Amino acid sequence: MSGRVYGIGLGPGDPELISVKAHRLLQGAQHVAFFRKAGRAGQARTLAGSLLPAGIVEHPMEYPVTTEIPVTDPRYNEVLSGFYAECIARLRGLTDAGDDVVVLCEGDPFFYGSFMHLHARLPDNSVEVVPAITGMSAAWTATGHPITWGDDVLTVLMGTLSEEDLTRHMGQADALVVMKIGRNLPKIRRALTRAGRADAAWFVEYASMPGQTVRRLADLSDDHGAPYFSIVIVHGQGRRP
Amino acid sequence: MSGRVYGIGLGPGDPELISVKAHRLLQGAQHVAFFRKAGRAGQARTLAGSLLPAGIVEHPMEYPVTTEIPVTDPRYNEVLSGFYAECIARLRGLTDAGDDVVVLCEGDPFFYGSFMHLHARLPDNSVEVVPAITGMSAAWTATGHPITWGDDVLTVLMGTLSEEDLTRHMGQADALVVMKIGRNLPKIRRALTRAGRADAAWFVEYASMPGQTVRRLADLSDDHGAPYFSIVIVHGQGRRP
Repeated sequence: MSGRVYGIGLGPGDPELISVKAHRLLQGAQHVAFFRKAGRAGQARTLAGSLLPAGIVEHPMEYPVTTEIPVTDPRYNEVLSGFYAECIARLRGLTDAGDDVVVLCEGDPFFYGSFMHLHARLPDNSVEVVPAITGMSAAWTATGHPITWGDDVLTVLMGTLSEEDLTRHMGQADALVVMKIGRNLPKIRRALTRAGRADAAWFVEYASMPGQTVRRLADLSDDHGAPYFSIVIVHGQGRRP
Repeated sequence: MSGRVYGIGLGPGDPELISVKAHRLLQGAQHVAFFRKAGRAGQARTLAGSLLPAGIVEHPMEYPVTTEIPVTDPRYNEVLSGFYAECIARLRGLTDAGDDVVVLCEGDPFFYGSFMHLHARLPDNSVEVVPAITGMSAAWTATGHPITWGDDVLTVLMGTLSEEDLTRHMGQADALVVMKIGRNLPKIRRALTRAGRADAAWFVEYASMPGQTVRRLADLSDDHGAPYFSIVIVHGQGRRP
């Protein structure tokens, strides 16, 4: 009998914010797989930290490229497709032998997650996805203010979009979440300013993690490095009694 | 010493999708409070189900109105404000006596949640919010397809918005989530059709719960009743290798 692949969301970072289900699957797992950059511990593996049971076999899947080839270059897709095929072969090797394997995912697997690229290449009946608390939920909780009230419209944007696109979307929604900040911070700030939303923006780093920091975007300089776990939040101001 | 109020998200419905932290707080709680309609069990209380420990004291908070007074009527805010003040007095009675109280929240407390109305009326240092898996995460997971890829823009809309507003937002985002469906289903469908998104729309009822049903919106008639736990999903189709 074949084993199964479980794509489990670890949640935003605090190990106690994992779901009871993901925790149970992790505790019972013999094999755990996760993506990482070559030479790094891996974000998901780091989040899982002490949650891994003793004796579990670890299967790091190391990206061949991340930023070295531009995403617009045809070679980018080619190299990544080959990499994902190798990952699938490795996972299928385990499941064909009857073993289950848990794939660690940061946040929620189906929300901008890298697990989706494996999921799309696996037969539906051999894989199960366990949803999780998103990083953005932890970020707005960290600000101490609700993200949306009443009929507020929430839009989630990637900082990698063009300044024009960012500005247009920022001007139309009530509540905003911007992820993939990194080197895009100056552009994101310009777009927020053009949309009239910069003064209401918050910058959250490491939400729910030990280094959690919450501040107004206005209090941050453009040359502040934005870590992988950083999110910009603009709260909705909708109807409330 | 005063007790604390914990607003804990229960997640989307499956009791195993609660966080380890919320589960721990619930198991250790002496008092649990939750909103409900008069004469009903209450959605949050029903979700919590068997998670409540034996001997816990239950404090239902019964809405004086929900749909009887239109939200545009000034009396609506007046009546609800009075109600929230009474709830706060009740919670403060418990915390002033040194007891902690857990308030049960469906989904994530700060994401369109009713707990926000209590949170806004409590001193910051007396309350803690525990984020949770949203109903929409369970809904897109149930469809078996990721909600967002690459740089997709996700917009979350309430079905209570006007057809014009819905149509405009639906035409601009890549991925869509529509909540508060109920009697708004025909209007939501018209807006999706005008925005050219109706054929790509899914309708998910009771995501992660025993009655979970996933189908194409096109396979559903307009007179299909939409339960409280129903969500419309349009997946993004962004970049993928």
